[in-house]
Amino acid sequence: MIDYTQHLSASARNLHESAIRRAGALAAAVPDIISFAPGYPSAETFPWDDLARITGALLERRSESTFQYGATRGYRPLIEAVIGALGQRGIGARFEELVITTGSQQGLDLAARVLFDPGDVVLVELPAYSGAVAAFHNLQAALVGVEMDDEGMVPEAVDRAAARLAGEGRRLRAMYLTPNFQNPAGLLMSPARRRALVETARRHDLLIIEDDPYGTLYFDEAAGAGTRPIKADDEDGRVIYLGTMSKTLVPGFRVGWLVAPEAIASRVEMVKQAADLCSGVFDQRVVHRALADGVVDRLAPTLRAHYRERRDAMEAALGAALGGQVGWQPPRGGFFLWLRLPDGVDDRVLFERALEAKVSFVMGSAFHVDGAGHDRIRLSFSSPTPGRIAEGVQRLAAAIGAARGK
Amino acid sequence: MIDYTQHLSASARNLHESAIRRAGALAAAVPDIISFAPGYPSAETFPWDDLARITGALLERRSESTFQYGATRGYRPLIEAVIGALGQRGIGARFEELVITTGSQQGLDLAARVLFDPGDVVLVELPAYSGAVAAFHNLQAALVGVEMDDEGMVPEAVDRAAARLAGEGRRLRAMYLTPNFQNPAGLLMSPARRRALVETARRHDLLIIEDDPYGTLYFDEAAGAGTRPIKADDEDGRVIYLGTMSKTLVPGFRVGWLVAPEAIASRVEMVKQAADLCSGVFDQRVVHRALADGVVDRLAPTLRAHYRERRDAMEAALGAALGGQVGWQPPRGGFFLWLRLPDGVDDRVLFERALEAKVSFVMGSAFHVDGAGHDRIRLSFSSPTPGRIAEGVQRLAAAIGAARGK
Repeated sequence: MIDYTQHLSASARNLHESAIRRAGALAAAVPDIISFAPGYPSAETFPWDDLARITGALLERRSESTFQYGATRGYRPLIEAVIGALGQRGIGARFEELVITTGSQQGLDLAARVLFDPGDVVLVELPAYSGAVAAFHNLQAALVGVEMDDEGMVPEAVDRAAARLAGEGRRLRAMYLTPNFQNPAGLLMSPARRRALVETARRHDLLIIEDDPYGTLYFDEAAGAGTRPIKADDEDGRVIYLGTMSKTLVPGFRVGWLVAPEAIASRVEMVKQAADLCSGVFDQRVVHRALADGVVDRLAPTLRAHYRERRDAMEAALGAALGGQVGWQPPRGGFFLWLRLPDGVDDRVLFERALEAKVSFVMGSAFHVDGAGHDRIRLSFSSPTPGRIAEGVQRLAAAIGAARGK
Repeated sequence: MIDYTQHLSASARNLHESAIRRAGALAAAVPDIISFAPGYPSAETFPWDDLARITGALLERRSESTFQYGATRGYRPLIEAVIGALGQRGIGARFEELVITTGSQQGLDLAARVLFDPGDVVLVELPAYSGAVAAFHNLQAALVGVEMDDEGMVPEAVDRAAARLAGEGRRLRAMYLTPNFQNPAGLLMSPARRRALVETARRHDLLIIEDDPYGTLYFDEAAGAGTRPIKADDEDGRVIYLGTMSKTLVPGFRVGWLVAPEAIASRVEMVKQAADLCSGVFDQRVVHRALADGVVDRLAPTLRAHYRERRDAMEAALGAALGGQVGWQPPRGGFFLWLRLPDGVDDRVLFERALEAKVSFVMGSAFHVDGAGHDRIRLSFSSPTPGRIAEGVQRLAAAIGAARGK
């Protein structure tokens, strides 16, 4: 019998199953569960007719390149269409600065591979998207959490962390930010805070990895006006920007993009070549047509109304069932509501009670690199119907009652 | 202006553009060039009607999960279909041992991430597939080339390399083998050599990464009988096996698979989760139906006949135009003919003359980790028509004449 631990890389020996996966496996075993756990888009919004028309036309045309290997950097017309869409949001990207990725998750991984050596420090929000944490962790980066206030990551806390890390002789490389309707906290970072964090990054010569999956999914016009990406004002060339079609079209086509200074984008392309040669070629064709034919633009208002309705349903249900016991900052876009639990209720205990009550969520601690967050849970309102949301919140209230009794 | 080299990881600073990419860019600028360079399948073989039927039915059915996020390990019915197909080739894989990858290139990358630390030594064939070399190089593995004879990698040469490396205190981890119609040499490893290399791996406690994209593309029944994968007789659990649909269906769906002992497969799955969450969900649905409906099995004899005809066309043209000047071992399957150049003709010089003559190929040195191979070129006969192959070989003969005159 081979002892495989002898054969594993240091990075692989260091892997541990994520709390979200473990919780997901437990929840999947419960019949008729209502899940507020995954950040899945609502399948009710999938534009079936458009996708049937686009795929049908691609099969009809029989262009050889539709099913052949493609360029590592991506399908050129798609790159140009993405550049056009980014232009509407204030980002002026050149062809040489953009790489199509297998979802924005691959963008996180490739950026980390190009930027981080083992032990390098990356600042992340408290709380932060667990998929980014996992991608950086795979490169053996050291993740340091920085507190957020109502406007976003706190610049003075960055300064304090930088001073402390410098004193320890550690190399601080980048900060990871999700300014628009953050996963999990739902927060919209203020314009002033965006500017302040760019200044902070300049002061410490940090790069910024800006992750923006939810930027166009705002619930009111004022919030929409506040979603201008940090990358749009990146005068230094300090920002690596990640986008995706997973929330605004469908996730089943794995199409995202990374925008970075050419010196970094060119290396991302080289790493990607050995990582998967190219992202799905058919997927890229379909997404290109969805952008070029206006499907994505036409869908956006529908998505905003759809998710706003679900946010409203969740807030109403929470107010009715748990008013005064729990707290949250109203999400002005995106998929997530970040719930503060009643005093003394622990996310791990609540999770067990919730499974008994046939409802699930993600424990707050799963998003905290500092071990905290046990007083919070992430509720995703994106995929259940309003009726299921109401019923799920009832079950959650019962589970909280049971957890308080312990 | 930011000095980005200060911000790059050691791995990224160590990247260099591949010779194949650079050559490809040069060749792409030549109008009406005949290319024997890329290992692309022939688009003439793409099963358009089947793919139109399958994609049409998937869009018709409107199953939510067709376009939703999928499991990192892969779409379960696809995994089961792949297990069935592998069973026909002698490989008994369990669900827990298989991970769907974004093409077999991702399998190479993920295996390397799970197995190799910087400086670890991997033995590769001389010559070896450049994409594997790049994937291992990205993990900062040290690649040591081992000579091949007519049967494959030479076990005694492995022993010598292992002894030398042990003397240098270096950690030898794995060998990378492509037993069936190797890229680039076209070689079919003998059954006895496969057994001998497993014994060799056991002796030195090495893992084997077995890459098998061409195993079902044999040109005669005797060759077909000799393609049983090493993995089929892997009693120790020492072999990590990679397969792909890119050569036997279409490459535009990025679907491959990795089969490994569960302890390794589970870690591959975890690394993949942070690398791209999941491979293309729609792609996996289509490939599943192509396997389950028998499309892949029905296509196989057509592909074998198609590529055999092209191999024949290339051998006939080479014999007529360059008989006695060049040499090669007849490829009994796959896509590649590995041509020995006339004495004194260097692959780099010939490449320049070839572009002038409007024909291209990949230089032999691009496949040699030891800096040799300048007396060889790789000719891919897979994608040009027989007529273009004949014309391309004429041009190649003219280029060789010009290079000899230098």
